[in-house]
Amino acid sequence: MSETDFIARLRGIATDPAARGLFDDTAVLGDLVLTHDMIVEGVHFLPDERPQDVAWKLVAVNLSDLAAKGAVPLGVLLGYSLAGDDEWDAAFVAGLDTVLRRYGVPLLGGDTVGIPGGAPRSFGLTAIGRAPPAGAPSRSGVRPGDQIWVTGTIGNAGVGLAMRLGEIDANETCLAAYCRPQPQLTFGQALVPHVHAMMDVSDGLLIDAERMAAASGCEIILMVETVPLSAALLAVRPDVLDTRLAAATAGDDYQLLFAADPDAADSIREIAAGLNIAATPIGHAGVGEGITLIHKAQRIALPQRLGFTH
Amino acid sequence: MSETDFIARLRGIATDPAARGLFDDTAVLGDLVLTHDMIVEGVHFLPDERPQDVAWKLVAVNLSDLAAKGAVPLGVLLGYSLAGDDEWDAAFVAGLDTVLRRYGVPLLGGDTVGIPGGAPRSFGLTAIGRAPPAGAPSRSGVRPGDQIWVTGTIGNAGVGLAMRLGEIDANETCLAAYCRPQPQLTFGQALVPHVHAMMDVSDGLLIDAERMAAASGCEIILMVETVPLSAALLAVRPDVLDTRLAAATAGDDYQLLFAADPDAADSIREIAAGLNIAATPIGHAGVGEGITLIHKAQRIALPQRLGFTH
Repeated sequence: MSETDFIARLRGIATDPAARGLFDDTAVLGDLVLTHDMIVEGVHFLPDERPQDVAWKLVAVNLSDLAAKGAVPLGVLLGYSLAGDDEWDAAFVAGLDTVLRRYGVPLLGGDTVGIPGGAPRSFGLTAIGRAPPAGAPSRSGVRPGDQIWVTGTIGNAGVGLAMRLGEIDANETCLAAYCRPQPQLTFGQALVPHVHAMMDVSDGLLIDAERMAAASGCEIILMVETVPLSAALLAVRPDVLDTRLAAATAGDDYQLLFAADPDAADSIREIAAGLNIAATPIGHAGVGEGITLIHKAQRIALPQRLGFTH
Repeated sequence: MSETDFIARLRGIATDPAARGLFDDTAVLGDLVLTHDMIVEGVHFLPDERPQDVAWKLVAVNLSDLAAKGAVPLGVLLGYSLAGDDEWDAAFVAGLDTVLRRYGVPLLGGDTVGIPGGAPRSFGLTAIGRAPPAGAPSRSGVRPGDQIWVTGTIGNAGVGLAMRLGEIDANETCLAAYCRPQPQLTFGQALVPHVHAMMDVSDGLLIDAERMAAASGCEIILMVETVPLSAALLAVRPDVLDTRLAAATAGDDYQLLFAADPDAADSIREIAAGLNIAATPIGHAGVGEGITLIHKAQRIALPQRLGFTH
């Protein structure tokens, strides 16, 4: 059973409104938003990843879900598997301390279990946040006519992974994007009054945009040439269509994808300027379904793989 | 690194008061209590366990933590690992539906990940509950002179496990205690006004009593002959000291262990009578530390193993 099929089954029993039909990044319970993400060795991180980076990623991917709801993090619960390597565990705790301090988030509790020898490490984190007073934006609020935006740049982490695997020469920006993703908490909080829908880009820009379109019951049209790529990425990849499609399907970006009325553009640019992080309009929403890619004024076929499904 | 050593390290970074020093069953955040427990194949459940029972246990062990705080469950987040067995996954979802309906708890969200072939299944659950208006009792409130009580009976699940392993002839009560533990939510909620400290018995009555004594900075003296054993257990084990010590160290009971002023005894008995579940005084608290066992008016040595440490 695929992840998608399994979630479809769970949807049959997750009928409480707080579950948002399991279509959203987080559950919303009163004024709290709640998310739980797991990462598994060999699936979400490399067996030779630095434990400090694993801790960082575990926290960052969950805080990124809170960022997409404009939430203020209140705390986390850790689910940890002990695999019998004291040095690794000690380095993980040090890394956990670093990332929790960086974002000012307390560790509240959790559980620790021993796992059988040779089993892959598996970690879970639950992050709890305070929803914004105006309510947490969902994925499903896109309206035809909205502009579609993304924060920061896309594709750095995908190139960073290739660097980690020794496939290409490393540069610090892309490696850091892969090893130490930055959840856009401040950006997300500031955007709340201006967006109709928001989510984070975790599995790939295209697959996540498709999910947003499906949840909203509309079409999302993306202009491939406007997808923002970093100078660090373009230093190692040519600026051609393949590079752009690779970036838009690589995942692990942890940027925010959001939809807003075109009238909100000035406010959004002002917020971005204040934070010194780009916000780039990359398309718009229309009546229809799914995503459509435009490249140089021509509609192009979707790549076979839109992103990761774990 | 043992679970205990690892948690000691985490304690160094879990300095927020909501974490309760990682000494309690749950974190307390405002009027919410939060808990996260994991279960791993081959550690917390047998590889041939029925998936419906695994789902039940995953939910029950977390709800039991809420019960110990007198909390009303508000919802759960599921962390699920897909191991490529569709029938198993479908049965798990059915079992999850059963247990969530039984306790009226909504599934709010979570995460699903694929795991490498042959890796043990690993599941996490976060349960969120509303704390009682008077505040959630902790483990650390025991006062010298308190009576120490336990709900229900102790040791059924341990015997149930032996039955599941085919070591002894099965009976339904003990098997059910092992496969389908019952979190004492209603009992816990009713006890709140009468207790100084409360926790659930998950790893073994003795080890959990020792943790309560340590958190409270006092001694807990237990009368072994008063530990309540079920007729179903005594049908397969003789009523001798060894049976009592085995029951008190077997774990998986998910009963409530609590401390209360002796003046509260009548109220506690009344609550128990109303629920038709036993509440049994099994000892008292004194000035000192650790646990002391008394059997037939004689102090006896502690068994080498007080319960499970995973």
